[in-house]
Amino acid sequence: MKKSIALLPGDGIGKEVVEATVEILKAIGEQFNHQFQFNYGLIGGDAIDQKGNPLPEETIAICKESDAIILGAVGGPKWDHNPVELRPERGLLALRKELDLFANLRPIKTFESLLDSSPLKKEYVDGVDFVIVRELTGGLYFGKPSERIVRDGEDAVVDTLLYKRYEIERILVSAFEIAQKRRKHVTSVDKANVLESSRVWREVAEEVAARYPDVTLEHMLVDNAAMQLIRSPRQFDVIATENMFGDILSDEASMITGSLGMLSSASLSSGGLHLYEPVHGSAPDIAGQNIANPIATILSAATLLRQSFGLEEEAKAIEKAVENVLNSGKRTADLAEGGKSISTKQMSEEIINAL
Amino acid sequence: MKKSIALLPGDGIGKEVVEATVEILKAIGEQFNHQFQFNYGLIGGDAIDQKGNPLPEETIAICKESDAIILGAVGGPKWDHNPVELRPERGLLALRKELDLFANLRPIKTFESLLDSSPLKKEYVDGVDFVIVRELTGGLYFGKPSERIVRDGEDAVVDTLLYKRYEIERILVSAFEIAQKRRKHVTSVDKANVLESSRVWREVAEEVAARYPDVTLEHMLVDNAAMQLIRSPRQFDVIATENMFGDILSDEASMITGSLGMLSSASLSSGGLHLYEPVHGSAPDIAGQNIANPIATILSAATLLRQSFGLEEEAKAIEKAVENVLNSGKRTADLAEGGKSISTKQMSEEIINAL
Ligand SMILES: CC(C)[C@H](C(=O)O)[C@@H](O)C(=O)O
Ligand SMILES: CC(C)[C@H](C(=O)O)[C@@H](O)C(=O)O
Repeated sequence: MKKSIALLPGDGIGKEVVEATVEILKAIGEQFNHQFQFNYGLIGGDAIDQKGNPLPEETIAICKESDAIILGAVGGPKWDHNPVELRPERGLLALRKELDLFANLRPIKTFESLLDSSPLKKEYVDGVDFVIVRELTGGLYFGKPSERIVRDGEDAVVDTLLYKRYEIERILVSAFEIAQKRRKHVTSVDKANVLESSRVWREVAEEVAARYPDVTLEHMLVDNAAMQLIRSPRQFDVIATENMFGDILSDEASMITGSLGMLSSASLSSGGLHLYEPVHGSAPDIAGQNIANPIATILSAATLLRQSFGLEEEAKAIEKAVENVLNSGKRTADLAEGGKSISTKQMSEEIINAL
Repeated sequence: MKKSIALLPGDGIGKEVVEATVEILKAIGEQFNHQFQFNYGLIGGDAIDQKGNPLPEETIAICKESDAIILGAVGGPKWDHNPVELRPERGLLALRKELDLFANLRPIKTFESLLDSSPLKKEYVDGVDFVIVRELTGGLYFGKPSERIVRDGEDAVVDTLLYKRYEIERILVSAFEIAQKRRKHVTSVDKANVLESSRVWREVAEEVAARYPDVTLEHMLVDNAAMQLIRSPRQFDVIATENMFGDILSDEASMITGSLGMLSSASLSSGGLHLYEPVHGSAPDIAGQNIANPIATILSAATLLRQSFGLEEEAKAIEKAVENVLNSGKRTADLAEGGKSISTKQMSEEIINAL
């Protein structure tokens, strides 16, 4: 198979974890006889520094010419005081909108060998296995007006939570499709006792559910969901929610496993060009030290192989190799709890050896 | 001292926990020689059933004639399919707006004797002691438009996150005032990398911070805050945030202690008429069984005595009594982990005996 992958390392540890992942993909290419072509693009702070734009046109072009995208991370204190349009995050938000990456998928699954690293007690996290399906191109993130105004003669500010009905429908369809291949349960999270958008969300969820009679639908208020994620995370199979709720809940959920450095994500587009990235950020405090955990990005690449290229066996090979390396006791610093640790590069090599 | 207290038991276990609390207040009245007059009012589902309105005019009048308010809880499946204006929660939202209860305070503090009931490991929760200061009368909860619309010829729906600058300022002032009497650290939570309202929030936080040079201010993005609450909850002293973020984060935070049935809250108004209520809801599944934990409401009443009536000694007496009863091993069902438990009424009697 011949495929091209756009690589957007971005800022901070983004560069290191993407490099480590490229090595894995090269090894998989050799082993399984595929040709992966890598096209590098600038995004985030790096792109601001070099091109004065967090998402240069070339980067969009590079993505559109590729079959799939791997992103590292964007952001850092260097750009924190820039005007809004020159912030690294703008690059990511613009890319999501430009490529219509409307469905963000974050699997939350505990690793047997890392059960102890969770802040939660073992009996709460053991066996946790769910996916958060977050809407990614609508809601408060993109609604207009979003500006300072005068209201009743007073200084005020407004943001807008806007959803078109079809946007709600397609993300819920994604959630039900995913649930069908899993344990067939969708928890739709909203704030229907307060927001009109949530009441529409709930209606659409009911409509979509009627088309998937084998999947059960449960509605949960977002405040309750924030509790339930801690109180009994095993109850969830697929969580479907809008952009801002998804942002908050998925970061909360990432704590369940106690290993943020292990969590992958996929952002799926309507057109078939998908983006894969680790859940963690650019971690400027440890950038450039060759100590970041590359596994989240490596697992994101495994998902890429499965989802975008249909390479199930290759995806499994990576996932199995990661598991074996962890079982053998190898840890990057974030997982080592003060014990012996290996570097980013060493982790990548260990995984390649285990392939 | 002669004072009147409006009692709004509401729905479900609201009635039971408020009754249990009235017994405590009567005992305190006798012991310390105060006259508390209790004025009952209808709110929520109960008010809908009896008056066709989740917040009848009489209830507002009763509150306004009183010196402080105790609320039980509102809501239940019976009214879940009512039209929006006839939902129990509407009564609560309308009351907040009517009385300008803009500052919701939720202390999160672990009880020595209940440390083990948290889903989090002991070493994470031991010593946790912070307050969430949530804005309660602005933002997405009340902004207009909040309605179904047509946009670009398509069905859509909009909600509005609106804040006047003074609303942001006064809640931050509350947070800094509280921090001054505590460990002098405010964590201001926003989503300034996405929302214009958060950028104004951040500016105002800086302005207010300049007036409290003894208090340190830290900004934290809401998604990160959702992680940090689990990862290292001890870092927090005072968390200040807007309405919706506060709703989600405070429910999440309530899981830290592992004892939702213990958590009290106060909602403070500009005019001096404050409302006190447990954090938990109406729990329809256990309503009417005399098994609900009344301690959250009892501790809310202690805060009432301190905050609204300046009765520090009386407040302390209640808090001490609760602690002693817990230390003696007495538990309501929610805390008993399947072991021996006592009823709502028995818990109230135990606390009275310990006064
Ligand atoms: C960087 C930021 C704009 C982004 C978001 O809020 O969506 C991030 O937190 C995420 O979850 O991918
Ligand atoms: C009942 C509901 C409207 C309310 C809210 O969202 O504010 C509740 O969740 C709370 O936190 O007091």
